[in-house]
Amino acid sequence: MIKLFYAPHTCSLASHIALEEAGAAYTTVRVDFASNGQRQPEYLAINPKGRVPALATDSGILTETPAILAFIAQSFPNAGLAPFDDPFAFAQVQAFNSYLCSTVHVAHAHRMRGQRWADDPAAIAAMQRKVPQSVGACFELIERDMLKGPWVMGDAYTICDPYLFTLSGWLEGDGVDLTKLPRVMDHHRRMSQRPAVQRAVAAELA
Amino acid sequence: MIKLFYAPHTCSLASHIALEEAGAAYTTVRVDFASNGQRQPEYLAINPKGRVPALATDSGILTETPAILAFIAQSFPNAGLAPFDDPFAFAQVQAFNSYLCSTVHVAHAHRMRGQRWADDPAAIAAMQRKVPQSVGACFELIERDMLKGPWVMGDAYTICDPYLFTLSGWLEGDGVDLTKLPRVMDHHRRMSQRPAVQRAVAAELA
Repeated sequence: MIKLFYAPHTCSLASHIALEEAGAAYTTVRVDFASNGQRQPEYLAINPKGRVPALATDSGILTETPAILAFIAQSFPNAGLAPFDDPFAFAQVQAFNSYLCSTVHVAHAHRMRGQRWADDPAAIAAMQRKVPQSVGACFELIERDMLKGPWVMGDAYTICDPYLFTLSGWLEGDGVDLTKLPRVMDHHRRMSQRPAVQRAVAAELA
Repeated sequence: MIKLFYAPHTCSLASHIALEEAGAAYTTVRVDFASNGQRQPEYLAINPKGRVPALATDSGILTETPAILAFIAQSFPNAGLAPFDDPFAFAQVQAFNSYLCSTVHVAHAHRMRGQRWADDPAAIAAMQRKVPQSVGACFELIERDMLKGPWVMGDAYTICDPYLFTLSGWLEGDGVDLTKLPRVMDHHRRMSQRPAVQRAVAAELA
């Protein structure tokens, strides 16, 4: 049985939605960030990085959202969440999700996790000030060049969609000008209407 | 014919090595970072992100190292560079490469690309000061928990190995204490002895 370790308001929502979309049988474990649960020994034994998500599978533990999403897609092929039989199309999916993890999520993380990259409080404040611009620039690229519509990869709903939905849910808190991102916001609304998304969101906020 | 857009001393080396390991027929185009070539209109038409690597294929352009590496592995299956037939094993490969792109490369980038995340020169200097610690912590985790040996995934050489080799080549410049990383440095030496690695490195430095 698959078990997802997650925390509300984090990128683990993407994996949670993908499990729902796949029709997977799974359980969840909420990691309590308020009490720094992600840094406690019992969780570090699961994921030594001290982050979510982590996915316990019959074969072992997986971490990193792009890898977990690809695993879910490959393990539940009937859900059609990624084009594994087409190396170029699959690589496009992986490229989009790599951009989200390595550039978009990282830009966002400078708002609340600045201590990862500097100790000086003034430097951390300077990072926070640039978040609307740096995250905004990422999403303007997504708006203009990446999001094909109606889904990220076009007509096919893939593992890119829950991940984009998760990160675009942080835009307002990041102070990004949403009026420049009509297609991204339209995608966010369209995602919000999917039953799988509603189930995952409701479970995390319960 | 595959065409790799690269720049010396960047993460594009990983894709370059993988093409050599795969025995791919390919050409290369050097993007001149000294003249800001990655930001010129002709390159932005190829990769609107203004970064390397980009891989021009018969199907279109690919970006993002983890996606390019997976594409090379899937396109040249005889080279055996990734376990595509085993969803868990493939996800482990993807998880390692995701960690390199989203956490390790990002920590490193705070040394020379701080302006991505702050405008204040003092903040950028503060970021630079933390690089030995932040990059060092990433590599201590790789040393202790991730690098199975002799290759990243154990006995099988995969697309994780050229990527780790590329990033571990930056450790000395990042001011990381190499004596704490004997297994990582041993991996780096072992990689340096592979003919494919030597060919890619020589081509980039020519």
